[in-house]
Amino acid sequence: MTTETTYQLLDGKQTSNDIKEELAIEVEKISKSGGTIPHLAAVLVGDDGASETYVNAKVKACEKIGFKSSLYRYPSSIAEDALLSKIEELNNDDSLHGFIVQLPLPDHIDEQKVKEAVSPEKDVDGFHPENVGKMALNLPTFISATPYGIVQLLERYSIETSGKNCVVIGRSHIVGLPMSILMARKAKPGNCTVTVCHSRTQNIKEFTLNADIVIVALGSAEFLTGDMVKDGAVVIDVGITRVKDDSKKSGYRLVGDVKFDEVAPKCSYITPVPGGVGPMTIASLLKNTLQAAKSS
Amino acid sequence: MTTETTYQLLDGKQTSNDIKEELAIEVEKISKSGGTIPHLAAVLVGDDGASETYVNAKVKACEKIGFKSSLYRYPSSIAEDALLSKIEELNNDDSLHGFIVQLPLPDHIDEQKVKEAVSPEKDVDGFHPENVGKMALNLPTFISATPYGIVQLLERYSIETSGKNCVVIGRSHIVGLPMSILMARKAKPGNCTVTVCHSRTQNIKEFTLNADIVIVALGSAEFLTGDMVKDGAVVIDVGITRVKDDSKKSGYRLVGDVKFDEVAPKCSYITPVPGGVGPMTIASLLKNTLQAAKSS
Repeated sequence: MTTETTYQLLDGKQTSNDIKEELAIEVEKISKSGGTIPHLAAVLVGDDGASETYVNAKVKACEKIGFKSSLYRYPSSIAEDALLSKIEELNNDDSLHGFIVQLPLPDHIDEQKVKEAVSPEKDVDGFHPENVGKMALNLPTFISATPYGIVQLLERYSIETSGKNCVVIGRSHIVGLPMSILMARKAKPGNCTVTVCHSRTQNIKEFTLNADIVIVALGSAEFLTGDMVKDGAVVIDVGITRVKDDSKKSGYRLVGDVKFDEVAPKCSYITPVPGGVGPMTIASLLKNTLQAAKSS
Repeated sequence: MTTETTYQLLDGKQTSNDIKEELAIEVEKISKSGGTIPHLAAVLVGDDGASETYVNAKVKACEKIGFKSSLYRYPSSIAEDALLSKIEELNNDDSLHGFIVQLPLPDHIDEQKVKEAVSPEKDVDGFHPENVGKMALNLPTFISATPYGIVQLLERYSIETSGKNCVVIGRSHIVGLPMSILMARKAKPGNCTVTVCHSRTQNIKEFTLNADIVIVALGSAEFLTGDMVKDGAVVIDVGITRVKDDSKKSGYRLVGDVKFDEVAPKCSYITPVPGGVGPMTIASLLKNTLQAAKSS
């Protein structure tokens, strides 16, 4: 038995690099014309290793393309009030255009309160309810990094979405919910007939088999199998899970929510994991920061 | 051929009256205990007949259940700035808990600007993007009148939604979009597998035939026909269109988005038009106003 493997990879790493290069060119132009250089600040609370890695990657990406960046570090013992005052300070700091508070935060700090404390105009993470609402209402806003990254991938690869059936698996506030809204909006990409599936869905396969586009954001390793996808589908894999693998030096490998070997041969387009949606998130944050600088 | 007609009507008129009676009892309690009587204000611009009717009905409903109400009228010539200042005044007026600006507004006034000018805490219409975002994020907020009315109907009739397939036809910001979000949320009612269909959907019937719950909000008279619905479905009809009918004194009759005679016999529950979703809207507004008063 031979399997045709005519699918095309949606290369997030390459696309992300393309976007960063474009941004670097734009910053250079701004700089030459004496305009305002975008300035992103990041707030890091505590010393969680993963958070540190993420924040450093964001700061580094800023530097690489010519944005200004600032990093504010606080011990995990910082009181909620003190953090909220710091946020208020950043809201009022005209020298910066956008800032993020790296999540998760220590247990004694109410994350929702923090998200709502960030001024919507500087909320380049797109977490403030006002920005979520604007996204839903198709108004100009900051779309959060992962959904915005997926939208840009679809755009850059000129994937037709209008009138297509799109199934979003997962309804997290950070990916599933916004993706389902974005894909159904009267916009480009968008205009899909969107079905949101989740833990309560009786027979997910019934829906995915009818889908032209499947977006999986469950965080459940290799959930989407070959028998769940129709030929020619576009598959976006948002999951990323470490799976023990003794054959690797690190002792683990990264797998997505899609059983790639089975699903890819049936696809027209598919994102790899790693190197698909993941690398797009920082590019999204940078794009939001540029937009914040422009509208400031 | 005989047709079984075992469906039950979702009686919005009765349910709305029940809710108003409950609110009246609550206001009486509040009054006796020296608490704050809820106070709703309405802003009416111009002299559009329909708007006048709606606003008067809202004011009258307030009076009937013991809420305070105020009506602010302005000529259609009012400048946008002047209206925005008035809204700012109402935002800061501690004597009232919620207010609405009746839509539509004259062409020279930007409705979106007006919606965003109303303080989210007093936005009992639930139109501010912050409140739309909170609704999406399942946070406490004001849900706008029509979607909230539908949610309450489902609740009062104890209709099981968890794990059901729900198809929402239409993606308007005022009904389709919020309903699709509400039905998919991890909440009760909610937890449906939701599909949003709209003008770009290729084959709506394919989706509706698989739906346990169909919510039609297109504004297209008798769009949903008997062949599009499966046996036992719950059908919510949000449309209301005047159709010429010489046999009526008025010269017209009101029809919904559902071809009732065909669809009802297949249903377990269905809303009539009129007397279904329509009457629920004022009850929703009143409930939001009470909530605003309580949290003020």
